[in-house]
Amino acid sequence: MGRVTVRRPVLRIASNGHRSRPDALAAEEPLEIRVNGKPLSVTMRTPGHDVELAHGFLLTESVIGDAGELATARYCDSPGPDGRNTYNVLDVALAPGVAMPDASVERNFYTTSSCGVCGKAALDSVKLRTRHSPATDPARVDSTTLIGLPDALRSAQRVFDSTGGLHAAGLFTSDGRPLVVREDVGRHNAVDKVMGWALMQRRVPLAGCVLVVSGRASFELVQKAAMAGAPVLAAVSAPSSLAVELAEEQGMTLIGFLRGSSMNVYTGAERVTIAESA
Amino acid sequence: MGRVTVRRPVLRIASNGHRSRPDALAAEEPLEIRVNGKPLSVTMRTPGHDVELAHGFLLTESVIGDAGELATARYCDSPGPDGRNTYNVLDVALAPGVAMPDASVERNFYTTSSCGVCGKAALDSVKLRTRHSPATDPARVDSTTLIGLPDALRSAQRVFDSTGGLHAAGLFTSDGRPLVVREDVGRHNAVDKVMGWALMQRRVPLAGCVLVVSGRASFELVQKAAMAGAPVLAAVSAPSSLAVELAEEQGMTLIGFLRGSSMNVYTGAERVTIAESA
Repeated sequence: MGRVTVRRPVLRIASNGHRSRPDALAAEEPLEIRVNGKPLSVTMRTPGHDVELAHGFLLTESVIGDAGELATARYCDSPGPDGRNTYNVLDVALAPGVAMPDASVERNFYTTSSCGVCGKAALDSVKLRTRHSPATDPARVDSTTLIGLPDALRSAQRVFDSTGGLHAAGLFTSDGRPLVVREDVGRHNAVDKVMGWALMQRRVPLAGCVLVVSGRASFELVQKAAMAGAPVLAAVSAPSSLAVELAEEQGMTLIGFLRGSSMNVYTGAERVTIAESA
Repeated sequence: MGRVTVRRPVLRIASNGHRSRPDALAAEEPLEIRVNGKPLSVTMRTPGHDVELAHGFLLTESVIGDAGELATARYCDSPGPDGRNTYNVLDVALAPGVAMPDASVERNFYTTSSCGVCGKAALDSVKLRTRHSPATDPARVDSTTLIGLPDALRSAQRVFDSTGGLHAAGLFTSDGRPLVVREDVGRHNAVDKVMGWALMQRRVPLAGCVLVVSGRASFELVQKAAMAGAPVLAAVSAPSSLAVELAEEQGMTLIGFLRGSSMNVYTGAERVTIAESA
């Protein structure tokens, strides 16, 4: 544990010369998630908050809908080359009566739809599986509050400062109060850790909350936000076409290019109140 | 086809006011890759260069080692809601004698190793599967050549300019001549498209080539470069710990933070010649 960064020597080449020096890298290790003893998924993640990550993954993949559906989560004994536990295998026991997921969660997203492999099928699959639709969430967020969130996210990123190598996701109240920030080498993992925290805190559905992500907004990230019932997703960079379509279909507010003092509102603009000065 | 960008209305909020305007988004659609008629994988990708993407995916997942092992690649008839072909399902036929891949490629990476789920197991898995080890590649690259590559990559990105939303990967000769640049909403897809192009051009193993990526260097991207025999991988942003370990084990040169006039060389520094002025 505590392997969030790893030190390595590096040759730094710059216009004023070159020299060898130590450098801090963001740690990346595989995590296998087992459900009732059966391997479900392996993700490359930054170690730490693994129990949250498993909760969030199972929530956003629609295996569980609330924390009570997960009975226990514990590390298996998984020795590495040195004989010590790697803490890279987490076994989750579902509560009695909760159905085991399909072995291949990610490849099933389109089989729930009657039509072929297309954006519409992907949207339909989310519609069928979400239990916490954010469509009716009456939350309102001021544009000046939104503008402050990337800095708030950045200042809560502890590891980024030393490595420059981590994605971040943060959950904020609609008046800008931070609830939780998580970092990971994988953007989907950072979001899953946040969602898992919220599930364990009994805060799902995420009524009135704003999820902020450090990078782009893909279909997958909007899907994760929708599965947790978050009414607003704000990304520092660009959204994809299917991310915007899914946000529209789910009744979510999707914001992109949230940088400096400006932003693009792609869907759900009724939740954004524009300050007088803007 | 030609669905590389999608136009949508957007509400732009800035300090000097707000207005609605059209915006171009990077297209994202699912692509199902079938092998001999059997579904193998679904990836969310930007449409275009799908045959290259399939070639690159199958190469970097070690299903094929050269273009001759793939007999044909064609779009299936996969109608969308409007009855027209979505061009989102690609069926690949392997040449006679080429083994069918496991149904679950990505979850098998660690089962080839005798030890548990850890970074070492992930490295061992790549070692067992790569057919084009870059370790003995005698390529040399000048640091001033490297410094020019991010701009060359950026200037070849056609879609980024209109959307700001795409990752890029580019292949260059060791003296900085661009061979191919591909863009995608997914960073792994951009690399697979480049690798697939190279395979179809009979350029694999990628002797003497430099692969440049617009973002970070993860384990997965180093793995893809190693599977194609690329001796040098240069990333504009940070590498992860396991990316550096894999590059070292594979005898590759891994460069990060290649920005402005500087860079960090993490492994294989013997391939980087430092200009007098540096």
